[in-house]
Amino acid sequence: MPDIAELIRSCDEWITPELDKVFDPSVSEDITVKAAKYSLMAGGKRLRPLMMKETSKMMGLTGIDEDIRYYAATLEMIHTYSLIHDDLPAMDNDDLRRGKPTCHKAFGEGFAVLAGDLLLNTACERLMSIAVSKPEYAYTSYMMMVRAGLNGMIGGQSIDLASEDKKIDLDLLIELQDKKTGALIKTAVVTPYMLSKKLTAETAGADEDYKLLINLASHIGLAFQIKDDILDVTSSAEVLGKNVGKDARDEKSTFVTLLGFDAACDYLNKEACGAREVLGKLKERGYATADYEILTDYLVNRDM
Amino acid sequence: MPDIAELIRSCDEWITPELDKVFDPSVSEDITVKAAKYSLMAGGKRLRPLMMKETSKMMGLTGIDEDIRYYAATLEMIHTYSLIHDDLPAMDNDDLRRGKPTCHKAFGEGFAVLAGDLLLNTACERLMSIAVSKPEYAYTSYMMMVRAGLNGMIGGQSIDLASEDKKIDLDLLIELQDKKTGALIKTAVVTPYMLSKKLTAETAGADEDYKLLINLASHIGLAFQIKDDILDVTSSAEVLGKNVGKDARDEKSTFVTLLGFDAACDYLNKEACGAREVLGKLKERGYATADYEILTDYLVNRDM
Repeated sequence: MPDIAELIRSCDEWITPELDKVFDPSVSEDITVKAAKYSLMAGGKRLRPLMMKETSKMMGLTGIDEDIRYYAATLEMIHTYSLIHDDLPAMDNDDLRRGKPTCHKAFGEGFAVLAGDLLLNTACERLMSIAVSKPEYAYTSYMMMVRAGLNGMIGGQSIDLASEDKKIDLDLLIELQDKKTGALIKTAVVTPYMLSKKLTAETAGADEDYKLLINLASHIGLAFQIKDDILDVTSSAEVLGKNVGKDARDEKSTFVTLLGFDAACDYLNKEACGAREVLGKLKERGYATADYEILTDYLVNRDM
Repeated sequence: MPDIAELIRSCDEWITPELDKVFDPSVSEDITVKAAKYSLMAGGKRLRPLMMKETSKMMGLTGIDEDIRYYAATLEMIHTYSLIHDDLPAMDNDDLRRGKPTCHKAFGEGFAVLAGDLLLNTACERLMSIAVSKPEYAYTSYMMMVRAGLNGMIGGQSIDLASEDKKIDLDLLIELQDKKTGALIKTAVVTPYMLSKKLTAETAGADEDYKLLINLASHIGLAFQIKDDILDVTSSAEVLGKNVGKDARDEKSTFVTLLGFDAACDYLNKEACGAREVLGKLKERGYATADYEILTDYLVNRDM
């Protein structure tokens, strides 16, 4: 039975070479490319690629591993661009990310804006490029962009920015997080399955496994965010690789500041149970859920 | 015979309703959407949609006007996002655009960054969405993203930012402008034809009309930029809708600062002649070039 460190290491070996070849070496002197690569290769846990790899393993998807990896790298590029822009002084104003200076600290704000734009644009180029040869993937690509957009990540980020210096209620916080971090986690969990089934708007709506995966991703996404808020209180910058105690200092509404520490922990456990329940159903349907259970436990118990 | 004002007005009537419906009214209270719409609907000459409309007219492309309009609005969204990010304090630091406060002046820097991201992401959603129903357009969409990316607009912007406070040579300035403004102008000129012929990487390379259009766009793009540099010296903020005299103040390398005023005017005329020469060839091939000649004359003679 692998442990989480082994799953993360194995994912890292799988995804890093794919990320490393995103930009042609002939353009490696361009400062925007350097800035984009700096953030893209800064490590991190690669949770979204890991979820994609694990969905693929759980459901026994064979023959499309190269495509899944291509989409995993593309999603990681979208995630990384959002971190770069999110860290800017005009947004969250963070100096530290994944234990290193943030992109704008290392390359200046102008190149950080451009590096983010470049990662998003290149992700779109990749999705359009594969649409040329594999039109059956177009709906999956479309949904990746939708979940990165106004009805997903950007929409959540917008609520977040509009809520600065304001107390928001729990419903809005849940909507914010469901969009800001939940949407890309949904993409990660469902994309391999969507690719393998060549899902369309019509077939996705009627697919039981797809619905279970979306449900699983909702619980995982919320648990992930609640844990993030808890770690901002209990962890240290050394362990976490980013600044802590910031939420309270900025009077930011989080699951901890809104609910209190104990209730936030209860909420986390409730979501973790929800995730395990869905995994139980997937197991009944014959899928190999063992690694996903390890992943879920990790998300709840992690200290970074 | 229409004059340029009539061409611009007719294009405005064609494209504005399409732009106006990009964002669902149900999200109109979102500040990022407001910021994006503010910049998208700020007017401007809509030169890129105009070029798309005129290519369509010149080549007698019928039956796909709705699709051309859809792509024209998508391209205008990409152009607008680049203006919003380009105007940021960390980039060109402009207060005035199309006669109105720039996006970050009106909505703050954080929402301006997000509004740019939203426009780019939504443009990609649109391209992926149409790829689902019309896979034969996928290569055209792919090339739109390529020309907006590292080998096009973003690449040019990166050279521009890296060249701040530095004197660059003419070759690099031409590369910079060919990418920064030229690439989207190429997209505008060729996209309607690419859609109508359902061009692919293979067929585009062998298509004589496609090559002529690319050639036309190169001349127009360069002429457009040289004229922009000249107007920065000769025009006023009232007429131009953006600040002037900025290039000299920032010691920016432009066609005027590198070549001198008279030689820049000569260069402009040379490029305009190049454009007219290509139009002559297109006319020989039976295409209706009259309006494009008006458009070319306007780009050279415009005072704003």
